[in-house]
Amino acid sequence: MPSLFKKPKLRFTDRLPEPGHFGADAVLIYDRILGRQIKGFTEWAERFPVSYGVKGGEELKSLDAFPRHMANLLAETERLSPKNIVIVVVGGGSVGDFGGFAASILKRGVRFVQIPSTWLAAIDSAHGGKNALNISGVKNQIGTFHFPEEIHLVRSVLFSEDAERALDAYGELAKMALIDGGRWSRAIAGSQDVEGHLIWSCLPNAIQAKYRVVAKDPFEKKKIRQVLNLGHTVGHALEAYHGLSHGAAVAQGLLFSMEWSRRKNLLKDPAYARVRSFLNERFFFQPLPQLKGFKKIPQKDFLHLIRNDKKRISTSLITEVFIQDFGKTRLLNVPLNSLAEEAKLQGWVE
Amino acid sequence: MPSLFKKPKLRFTDRLPEPGHFGADAVLIYDRILGRQIKGFTEWAERFPVSYGVKGGEELKSLDAFPRHMANLLAETERLSPKNIVIVVVGGGSVGDFGGFAASILKRGVRFVQIPSTWLAAIDSAHGGKNALNISGVKNQIGTFHFPEEIHLVRSVLFSEDAERALDAYGELAKMALIDGGRWSRAIAGSQDVEGHLIWSCLPNAIQAKYRVVAKDPFEKKKIRQVLNLGHTVGHALEAYHGLSHGAAVAQGLLFSMEWSRRKNLLKDPAYARVRSFLNERFFFQPLPQLKGFKKIPQKDFLHLIRNDKKRISTSLITEVFIQDFGKTRLLNVPLNSLAEEAKLQGWVE
Repeated sequence: MPSLFKKPKLRFTDRLPEPGHFGADAVLIYDRILGRQIKGFTEWAERFPVSYGVKGGEELKSLDAFPRHMANLLAETERLSPKNIVIVVVGGGSVGDFGGFAASILKRGVRFVQIPSTWLAAIDSAHGGKNALNISGVKNQIGTFHFPEEIHLVRSVLFSEDAERALDAYGELAKMALIDGGRWSRAIAGSQDVEGHLIWSCLPNAIQAKYRVVAKDPFEKKKIRQVLNLGHTVGHALEAYHGLSHGAAVAQGLLFSMEWSRRKNLLKDPAYARVRSFLNERFFFQPLPQLKGFKKIPQKDFLHLIRNDKKRISTSLITEVFIQDFGKTRLLNVPLNSLAEEAKLQGWVE
Repeated sequence: MPSLFKKPKLRFTDRLPEPGHFGADAVLIYDRILGRQIKGFTEWAERFPVSYGVKGGEELKSLDAFPRHMANLLAETERLSPKNIVIVVVGGGSVGDFGGFAASILKRGVRFVQIPSTWLAAIDSAHGGKNALNISGVKNQIGTFHFPEEIHLVRSVLFSEDAERALDAYGELAKMALIDGGRWSRAIAGSQDVEGHLIWSCLPNAIQAKYRVVAKDPFEKKKIRQVLNLGHTVGHALEAYHGLSHGAAVAQGLLFSMEWSRRKNLLKDPAYARVRSFLNERFFFQPLPQLKGFKKIPQKDFLHLIRNDKKRISTSLITEVFIQDFGKTRLLNVPLNSLAEEAKLQGWVE
């Protein structure tokens, strides 16, 4: 069955949940790297009725590899009761995407649970029910909406990540703060926390902010949920072309949107100054084109990437999110040409 | 976006609809055999913005072939607007399953339209939103619920099928008549129509009967929709083991359910006599074990097939549909062992 939208149970805990909590037909899908990264993880994993280790990363999201994984999962789960299967996914964004998609189509959909193991997944991709695979290297071209029943945010798992990886989550954290506004987002500016400690302290607020948006438009039908794409158009292009991490790409996308919003006179001072200081000084985001030796994207390649964007709504138009202030964004349908023109002006595109 | 349940528009027509009806971002997926079978079909297909021909049959439902098809579809649709894509599927059950699944996951779900080209698809599989692919030869192990917006039932297309193929649809027609009861089902007994003419005349009633069930439980969550599995447990096993057509397998499954219902004293005379005459005399269904040389299924193989059945609800129980009379069925959870025992008694299993 497809999972219609229902806000999942969020559990903030110190340690991994007991495998028995998920019943006799639980299937664990986990990133094998966690066995080396977290003490006792392998023993924990082996206590599930079925456990299936994968190698996290974009290759896991390749549609070409998918049939083999599904054949393996089918063989492993043959003795379970189809109607009672619950898939428990422990890993970063790629494992969550893979596991969520698998859960959404196995036996026409089984229940699932997310336990994000990276800060980026914990703050963003584990929430909201979207998953996706890549086709022929083009990202996220197929996927489903399938909402987890529970999401466990496990302190010891998240802090087992290298501290620098928390910086990957800054892009999505800054995005949610900009979209939501509110006291928690303003508090970030004054907080002394860094890296994982900053993310962990903001996690409840950032996640609730995302669900406030998702609950109004879970399947992205009403142009409400699209606001979460702030910074993602140019972000995705940079991710694909320059191989930036998703988080770093979104951070750059936010800078792009900020400057474009200002040029369109949607983001005026003093809001512009506030947003700029938030991104530049609190999160240390600096526009890549300022770097010596930055390789601009050829216009042809940029347009090719933009044309594959799911936000494109016609041959020549794409929906873009602009910033007006903290807590105030605006969706506009803009010509692909204007987008390319702006990217050129800002030095991203040749 | 996933398509939540909404009864599709049903259009009974003489000829194929105009391609322009589906807009500038329509993608036709069609069974290539129709180009040889229906005059003018190829010219009609070429008038779609994108058309993609496939070879119908179980191989099309193989998950192994799926990545290649999706890469092709992605390349073909690159210039279309992702948000406006509508997939129009013309073919039998396998093409409908493939196309419906593809539509449900491409860009996280696009709209789609079914134009069944076989009697079996027209009466059953094109309706109800289920689709599925096979993994490693095990049928229908992955899939989604994705409801078509429109279903066109095109007289000239359906009558282009060989007349004998209409017999394939008898199993599902008899099933719907048994489940629904009502005047239309009783009228079948007295009708002089045969083959395609019988199906065409019953199509509106049989389809409406199916939607009456599906509307109450579109995602099979409430044990209501499962009634449509009448005849399908043993049917699927015969289909897999003996390579029977789906329709012929369901016909045999109905005979099995009828006899088992009688042995359990759920189906009593005179209802038993009525149901039996309906199946044996109106539809010419005769139990295969009566044939000389019928090869019984080894018990081990039978149990293996049953264990892969999505209707299994625990290690040892499966939900089975029993017949009490026309319009009166009953769901019971029965042990796999009892099912195997009954199949042995009736001569299906060694």
